[in-house]
Amino acid sequence: MRGRGERLETLLGERGLDRMLVTDLVNIRYLTGFTGTNGACVCGPGIRVFLTDFRYTERAATEVEGWEAITVEGDWLASIAERLEGKVGFEDDHLAVRSLEKLKEKLGEGVEAVPAGGTVERLRRVKDAEELAAIEAASRIADEVWEWSVERGFAGRTERDVARAAEARIRELGGDPSFPAIVAAGPNGALPHAEPGERTIGNGELIVFDMGAQLDGYCSDGTRTYATGDPGAEAREVYGVVLEAQLASLEAVKAGASGEDVDAVARKVIDAAGHGKHFGHGLGHGVGLEVHEAPRLSPRADDVLEPGEVVTVEPGIYLPGVFGVRIEDFVVVEEGACRNLSTLPKELTLVD
Amino acid sequence: MRGRGERLETLLGERGLDRMLVTDLVNIRYLTGFTGTNGACVCGPGIRVFLTDFRYTERAATEVEGWEAITVEGDWLASIAERLEGKVGFEDDHLAVRSLEKLKEKLGEGVEAVPAGGTVERLRRVKDAEELAAIEAASRIADEVWEWSVERGFAGRTERDVARAAEARIRELGGDPSFPAIVAAGPNGALPHAEPGERTIGNGELIVFDMGAQLDGYCSDGTRTYATGDPGAEAREVYGVVLEAQLASLEAVKAGASGEDVDAVARKVIDAAGHGKHFGHGLGHGVGLEVHEAPRLSPRADDVLEPGEVVTVEPGIYLPGVFGVRIEDFVVVEEGACRNLSTLPKELTLVD
Repeated sequence: MRGRGERLETLLGERGLDRMLVTDLVNIRYLTGFTGTNGACVCGPGIRVFLTDFRYTERAATEVEGWEAITVEGDWLASIAERLEGKVGFEDDHLAVRSLEKLKEKLGEGVEAVPAGGTVERLRRVKDAEELAAIEAASRIADEVWEWSVERGFAGRTERDVARAAEARIRELGGDPSFPAIVAAGPNGALPHAEPGERTIGNGELIVFDMGAQLDGYCSDGTRTYATGDPGAEAREVYGVVLEAQLASLEAVKAGASGEDVDAVARKVIDAAGHGKHFGHGLGHGVGLEVHEAPRLSPRADDVLEPGEVVTVEPGIYLPGVFGVRIEDFVVVEEGACRNLSTLPKELTLVD
Repeated sequence: MRGRGERLETLLGERGLDRMLVTDLVNIRYLTGFTGTNGACVCGPGIRVFLTDFRYTERAATEVEGWEAITVEGDWLASIAERLEGKVGFEDDHLAVRSLEKLKEKLGEGVEAVPAGGTVERLRRVKDAEELAAIEAASRIADEVWEWSVERGFAGRTERDVARAAEARIRELGGDPSFPAIVAAGPNGALPHAEPGERTIGNGELIVFDMGAQLDGYCSDGTRTYATGDPGAEAREVYGVVLEAQLASLEAVKAGASGEDVDAVARKVIDAAGHGKHFGHGLGHGVGLEVHEAPRLSPRADDVLEPGEVVTVEPGIYLPGVFGVRIEDFVVVEEGACRNLSTLPKELTLVD
């Protein structure tokens, strides 16, 4: 957590804020290390206060680093309000309407609540060495589980069985699933958010297998598309297009590139193959304490990539009622290139 | 989902609202059956509209019952706003400040957003037969896992190992943990929200084991305190006090009783034993799609119990640095009594 409060304080200065009230639990974890379910942070010049309730006094003492941890015994909002002054940024993208109304009733004279959502999320984009270590370890767990899953084979099993087994294996290896694994075979692969079902995977089918592990709070995210025997000429051709789009856009991921430009590289390849309308989502997104966070790689993303950001690169082509293909790597943005954390092969792998 | 939209419509009428905008995903699931991660409901006289995006079109078609399911292709908030008129209740306890501001920009002339948080939660308090069936099945899974855990023994294992094994067993039995299991031995039992750690459980220790299963979205919640051999006179005495408080307060749970009164029954027993200050939480809470929901049993709860509500009854005594005892059952409120879903013995069980 070292230095994160200081970076937030600098950002407040730039934005003309005297205090920042942080209420989102993920942002609180990022700033302080606290993993409980009730807390708030007040940050300002030389001020680092973390508030929680009696249930979490001991946990805060163990986890919170670089912030004064206070257990509130009386009125929660009053305890927060008495630490606020001047222009106070609050997380308008997280804080509930009712909570803000009640907080305003407690604010002192001349204290003004100013919408400042996204401020901590901005800091979270660039990962430090400790965060990258957790992310890489999470990614290794997931890669190991793909390999383990491939060895067990897919044909004759249900999607749900494959997904559940992979999640259990992630836990055996010391992680948690960063989201429920997606195992979508045959026509289900064309559903962008398929839930693994009781459908038995047949032979000659494509299987979209999207999975991530979470370790020490940090997530990984990746996808491979496998085939249970030869899936046919159309599937092989579509797979080739997605792979070409993926390789080309990976080349474009580097510090200084915009999310829009990187997305366009993949989209151009897929458009040229006549599948533009079958690629209905953005190319990628940041990953960290949350599996979807800033920056975004998409047609509408003006985010400019910086060294230390971790993003997915995941073009896909989805033919409704037929099949889907998605190939997703998980990379660290560096100067001049990206460093790919995914260790799995990318040519179409035939699996039992 | 049958009838839930109708009950909501009735409540809107009573509260002078023309429409209700529901944005909380748990409330949406309750009303419509939808389990995805993006949606909104608009309810009004004869109006039942559920909105989602392209990712969830197929899921909505499968899951949503009794509501017109619409996939929004253009502006999300504009699509919602065009379905709102008159006085529109919104969930001020869930909706983020920024979302309300943006929604207000899209509202038509004369349309007014009125805070109406807790409206759907009010409906959720009383469970129907289908909900009770899911809750009872979840409770049976958890009970089976306590029995399975007791057979495997506690002494010599770490808290984390016991907790992780129990969670894995819940999954093997077809459920999910409704929250991370708490296994808190010896002095850790005195921490109200202990996280199972690497501490090895010794002999003659008390173990607070709090766990729940979730099935078809519905949660169970219960606690037993075990001992690895004789825990000593003080522990046995405290256990006896908690058990007496628990049995007495269970007697008091029935339709028409207030949450405050039921809590007072347990608190009186614990106070009389000189442990009033060691019982720092409320006696219980409702359980359903969420593991904590209305009504509450606590010193400040004016909720009056109704038939079909499902609540926990969980007095505890926590001696800082020494040990903790909590006994938690999971019951359905009925006329004149409660029906206890917990099937486990309650005398102090000595475990290997």
